[in-house]
Order: sequence, then structure tokens, then C-alpha cells
Amino acid sequence: MEDKRKVSIAVVKRLPRYYRYLYDLLKIGITRISSKELSERMGITASQIRQDLNCFGGFGQQGYGYNVESLFNEIANILGVNEKFNTIIIGAGNMGQALANYSNFEKRGFRHVGIFDVNPNVIGKKINNLTVMHMNELDEFVKKNKVDIAMITVPYDQTPVVAEKLVELGIKGLWNFSPMDLKLSGDVIVENVHLSDSLMVLGYKLKEKYGRK
Amino acid sequence: MEDKRKVSIAVVKRLPRYYRYLYDLLKIGITRISSKELSERMGITASQIRQDLNCFGGFGQQGYGYNVESLFNEIANILGVNEKFNTIIIGAGNMGQALANYSNFEKRGFRHVGIFDVNPNVIGKKINNLTVMHMNELDEFVKKNKVDIAMITVPYDQTPVVAEKLVELGIKGLWNFSPMDLKLSGDVIVENVHLSDSLMVLGYKLKEKYGRK
Repeated sequence: MEDKRKVSIAVVKRLPRYYRYLYDLLKIGITRISSKELSERMGITASQIRQDLNCFGGFGQQGYGYNVESLFNEIANILGVNEKFNTIIIGAGNMGQALANYSNFEKRGFRHVGIFDVNPNVIGKKINNLTVMHMNELDEFVKKNKVDIAMITVPYDQTPVVAEKLVELGIKGLWNFSPMDLKLSGDVIVENVHLSDSLMVLGYKLKEKYGRK
Repeated sequence: MEDKRKVSIAVVKRLPRYYRYLYDLLKIGITRISSKELSERMGITASQIRQDLNCFGGFGQQGYGYNVESLFNEIANILGVNEKFNTIIIGAGNMGQALANYSNFEKRGFRHVGIFDVNPNVIGKKINNLTVMHMNELDEFVKKNKVDIAMITVPYDQTPVVAEKLVELGIKGLWNFSPMDLKLSGDVIVENVHLSDSLMVLGYKLKEKYGRK
């Protein structure tokens, strides 16, 4: 078993789901589980599970199954839950405030350290221990504080400019909520949350299953 | 070319992205495009594009490329953008309010017709032409109005109960924002938006590229 394993991005994208299920198992006191049982709970095939978990050495033993806690810790480790990423939120509208209040992120290693906007109606407002700052305080804030990730929840047409600015400031991770794929030249990793795309897939499935209305 | 084509779900999940890109091309007046050009804009291979678009008959012609408007309309049609889905929002917290205010959904065929909560502080509040109703008005509302999709933005522990209730009321599409995979026995289609999962993938990529901090 190597200590540093290269995991394919397809597997990585499934890891948070394993993480959630294993967390729930731990909470209810289940200490070991077979790939078959896990497969039934998660609704994916046991062979897919074995294949995914084998990627990073796997902890399954024939006739025993997986040790839930070891597997959970391993996945947490691979995902970097213990890394403690510092995050800022750009845009303190409803979406920005929802993200600021979302308690789940901190449990998973993401800590909000700042929130910014240009709207005088929200600047100075307290949201979950953060005070909304003006965008013109951003430069100095990023120079003084370690910021790993910026969550972008500004209006569509402002997104590219804001994103370029964040890259210039040296922020390496952008989490983008605008319905566009950001194209940035700098040294940066972008993850997009395309809400409308997800909703359209739901619409498609409804239309296919229940027909035209 | 068949009129009713079965498209794989993997392709369907990519269609909203084509939809966005083609919409942007139309906006800037581009009427035709080669798979090569589209591939460069979208950052996927030209062969993937040809393969995806061939699934529903494709409109590409050798030496001409795709007619942007035809392709856009075809994709819109497959996705059901012209179907006009009626949606309600359960939970008028920050996330629910963000969804209520999100102008992009209506353009894509989704119209909010109601928003519900139990918190007296938000009941009666006007949000983007909707007035927040109490959850105990939900039954009657759903009986009187056509509701295709419910967007669930209630706290984690209330999600399963609320979801069961919505299925009982005959709502066929659930869009779930809680970090759990809803398991429902009824006749329903669920799409989950797992925000933390997306953020964890970003964390993983940062850790892999830039190392431990």
C-alpha cells in the first residue's frame, strides 16, 4: 500500500458521497460493513464500491468487510477535510448569506473568514460571526489573511471581472455560482455550481417519465 | 431521423452546458459553428461533441458545421424548456430566498408559484412577487394549483419528512438541497444539489496541486 496514491477525478467526485454515508454509519454506531451492505444503502453496485475503494489501497478484508472508521478517516484524509481551508464569500446577497450560514462546511474543513459586497445596505451587517466588508477592503484583507478559496455569488455580468481580480490576488481556488464556465488564464482551480443545469436535468427526467403536460 | 429519440442520461447531463454555450453564441450573432470551434470554446473534444449531438439526430453537416439556432432549439426542446414547469420552494431561509430571486430559472421554463415556511418572521414576506405562505397552507395550495417541482431548502433533519409529505401530495419532482440522498418509496424523481460535495472536490484539487499548507 503506497502512502501517496493517485486517485482518478471520477473516483474523487464520488468520495464526498462515501464520506457522507460512512459518517452516518458512524453516527448510528455501525463499525464494519460489507461492500454488499454499503452498496444497498448507497444504491450503487458492490463491484463499483470495491473498485473505487481499491484505488487508495482499500480497507476491505474478505469475510470482514470494511472498517467504517478507518475508511471514513482515510477518505477524509484524501479529501483534505483536516487541511482547514480558509474561505471568503464574494457577494452577500441571499446566496452569499446562505453559504455564510451553512454549518456543514466547517465540519468538512472549510472555514469562512470574510464576506464582501458593494451594496451599502449589507455592508457592516453581521452574518454568522462575520461582518460584511466592502469590496475595496478585499486587497488588504487577502494580503493579511490566508485565503484558500473564494466563493463567488455576484451577479452574472460581474463574475468574470471579480474572478480575474481574485486570481490576481493569488487566490488558488474559486467556487463559482454563476451559470457560466469561468475561463481564467492564471494559476487557479475553479469548481462551478451550475444550479440551472441540475434543474434542467430534473425537468428532462419529469418530461420523459410523465410526458408532456 | 426519429422524432422521439432516447438520449442517455450521461448525455442529458451535458445538454444544459451545450444549451448555455449555444445561447451565448446566438446572443453574439454567431449562426453556425463547427464542432472544432465549439470544442475549443467548451473545452471538450470535437469527437465528444459529435457523438453527443448525434444521439438526437445531430444537425452537423460536413463542411458547414452546426446551425446554432436549430441546435439550440432542438436541445431546448429535448430538455423541456418550453414545457413550463411550475415550482414551489419549501423553506424561505436564505437559500429559499436566493432560489426565489434567481431570474435564470424562468428563462429556462421554471416558474415559481409558491414559497412556504413555518417561521413567523418570514410568513407574509414578499419575495420576487411571491408571498411566503405557512406550511399548513401547502395541502390546499397543491390541490388548487399545478405544481411540478418542489425545491427543498429546509434544515437537514426536517428534509425526509417534508419530502415524504410532498410525494404524498402527488408532486413528481423534488430538487433537494440537503446533504443527503433522499430515499423515497413513492412515484417521484429526485435531483440532489450537494453543495458540500462540490466544495470537497475543490478542496481535494487544491491539496493535490498546491500541497499541504
